[in-house]
Amino acid sequence: MEFKFSEKVSHLQASAIREILKYSADPQVISFAAGSPAPEALPAKELEELSKELLAEEPSVAFQYGLTEGYTPLRDEVKKILKDRGVFNPEYDEVIITSGAQQANELSAKVLCNEGDVILAEKPSFIGSLNAFKSYRVDLKGVTLETDGVNIAELEEKLKEGGVKLVYLIPNFQNPTGNTMSWEKRKAAFELCKKYGAVILEDNPYGDLRFAGEDVKSIKTLDTEGSVIYSGTFSKILSPGIRVGYVCAHKDIVQKIVVCKQVADVHSTMWSQMLAYRFLKKYDLDEHLAKLRRVYEHKTNLMLSEIDKNFSSKITHTNPQGGLFIWCTLPEGVTTQQMVDFCTTAVKDYKVAIVPGTAFNINDDDESRSFRMNFSTPTDENIIKGCEILGKLSKEMFGE
Amino acid sequence: MEFKFSEKVSHLQASAIREILKYSADPQVISFAAGSPAPEALPAKELEELSKELLAEEPSVAFQYGLTEGYTPLRDEVKKILKDRGVFNPEYDEVIITSGAQQANELSAKVLCNEGDVILAEKPSFIGSLNAFKSYRVDLKGVTLETDGVNIAELEEKLKEGGVKLVYLIPNFQNPTGNTMSWEKRKAAFELCKKYGAVILEDNPYGDLRFAGEDVKSIKTLDTEGSVIYSGTFSKILSPGIRVGYVCAHKDIVQKIVVCKQVADVHSTMWSQMLAYRFLKKYDLDEHLAKLRRVYEHKTNLMLSEIDKNFSSKITHTNPQGGLFIWCTLPEGVTTQQMVDFCTTAVKDYKVAIVPGTAFNINDDDESRSFRMNFSTPTDENIIKGCEILGKLSKEMFGE
Repeated sequence: MEFKFSEKVSHLQASAIREILKYSADPQVISFAAGSPAPEALPAKELEELSKELLAEEPSVAFQYGLTEGYTPLRDEVKKILKDRGVFNPEYDEVIITSGAQQANELSAKVLCNEGDVILAEKPSFIGSLNAFKSYRVDLKGVTLETDGVNIAELEEKLKEGGVKLVYLIPNFQNPTGNTMSWEKRKAAFELCKKYGAVILEDNPYGDLRFAGEDVKSIKTLDTEGSVIYSGTFSKILSPGIRVGYVCAHKDIVQKIVVCKQVADVHSTMWSQMLAYRFLKKYDLDEHLAKLRRVYEHKTNLMLSEIDKNFSSKITHTNPQGGLFIWCTLPEGVTTQQMVDFCTTAVKDYKVAIVPGTAFNINDDDESRSFRMNFSTPTDENIIKGCEILGKLSKEMFGE
Repeated sequence: MEFKFSEKVSHLQASAIREILKYSADPQVISFAAGSPAPEALPAKELEELSKELLAEEPSVAFQYGLTEGYTPLRDEVKKILKDRGVFNPEYDEVIITSGAQQANELSAKVLCNEGDVILAEKPSFIGSLNAFKSYRVDLKGVTLETDGVNIAELEEKLKEGGVKLVYLIPNFQNPTGNTMSWEKRKAAFELCKKYGAVILEDNPYGDLRFAGEDVKSIKTLDTEGSVIYSGTFSKILSPGIRVGYVCAHKDIVQKIVVCKQVADVHSTMWSQMLAYRFLKKYDLDEHLAKLRRVYEHKTNLMLSEIDKNFSSKITHTNPQGGLFIWCTLPEGVTTQQMVDFCTTAVKDYKVAIVPGTAFNINDDDESRSFRMNFSTPTDENIIKGCEILGKLSKEMFGE
């Protein structure tokens, strides 16, 4: 039988990153392609212990159906944390637990956007969210991302063109670039979106992983009338495999997200939610985060110094103050095809996986001469080895 | 801020069942409204033990990201079971693990249907799937459900009208009616859908829970070219709280579902999938199912005899051979409003929760004088007590 697929999905392809992750299944491959937390940063022992407790004490809660809104004790705990950070306004905000932040971002687009509505996103941006938006046939447009956040003049220009329903931003240690949006730009973007009636979707998966520089407050802290949707996750600080994220937004928006989550997966896995809750109750979150930050600081510094030591001097890179990624850019004049060739040769012939910048493009035919490197997943030894290999290859292809 | 929601979701309301479930949170309420497995049928001790083992042995698999397609050992195990049942054709079928069967059904609609495409469903049918379909703005039409399955002449009539992309059927112990589709009607529906180029979505959450009568083979066993999507779940036989379901369909369809699941929630919770896998490996599934069937047979018979003993003789009911539900119908001439009043009075004044038939309507203004009763969740004692209360009320409202 020949299938006529929905126009929403007929052009969607599996994400290039997840395809490259399949290469990485080869144990010989050193992977800088993933976005997984450092194995040594996962509190696996603690989670194992908490799991034992919760299954012994509350099996009927863990194994039966739960509320779509989420496991109430976890929701309350998340609200408390967000309130402390100025991100939750008890007067009009609500919180719903989602199956990872991916679901948070997908459902935000689903509840707000008709086919053809415009969503603006940083150029480049996180492929998972971009594909989610595309799967609702929205008109996705990019705004150039600079070291300190989107170009504000260009943002206003695009907002002026009209039809913008949602502006998708990852202000902290952005994926893929590692860049952080300045407080000035956060304020400017917030004011502009308010002026033009667009909702901001602030995706903050990495905010807790700052190991350098000063904290910059969330855009959501500026929100006075519910025009910012904030999404967060336990994937990077506890475990991605448990799939627990959350959305904090105006009650009316959350209510619609609840209806859509009900038809998407009824509710998130109970065990996962109970595990996250028990972790928050038993352990000091700040202490835990401090430990994670030390791991990531060490790994970032190691990778940055190995890049500087080994790579062709013509390659530039970002200097992230947190998160999981470094963004490298090949010299001017290098074509998109040459960049892709570099990445392909690296994984196929030299067994080092990096993600070509094209994976984060807004439009399929956008140019890119960058690639993303992840420092959280590989061991120190492999960071050194992988950078040596990439360095040698980069010098061969682009000169000393 | 006033939000302009997507037209897809602006008319969607939280499901009436889940609203009634909130009433049921009152410990005084006897709930016949849920669709949860019997607490005594959940293998909680076994799952607790398996969880301990898997977290001790494979924490890095449980806590890190996994493949969107699902945990490979579980997928292989599901394929094996489905192949034994004639439901998986290794030549062209594939399997993907989903976050419950709800996600299986939602994503099937998403990958196949454009806005305005027609989906046919049994009238009445499972609200969760109906709402999922509506959330993609499809044109949902009902086909009258008889004791032995949909009215075949009416099905052909509706198919003839054109534009039908998907025909949604729950052949075994249907939700909400408990009815089973006969083998003759399965064959007829299959042939008709093939003739008119519509894909069948065969939802089979209850098929393993047959305690009376003869097994009827799945529609998917007739499939020779991949025109049937089959969805199943571990919710009713292991635990709904773990959220593990699956889809078996033609490779091309599964490939699209994979892309859509990637943007929906990346992958299902790893622990849940590993738990289901270890259960299948360690325990004899047939033995486990035999145990469940004894529990459900006892509970159904108890509820049926209590209905016969207590209810107004003018109320008719189905006699399910499996599953979780009995469907009761008030005498002819009773209006939809009177039926709703009966259900509302029952829960508000007499603390017994049942689900009004309107919750399962295809269109909001369809009539109904039926209600759904669940026998798996309440204790024996509460089945007796609840039926006495409902019986008294029914006689008051509709005569002896």
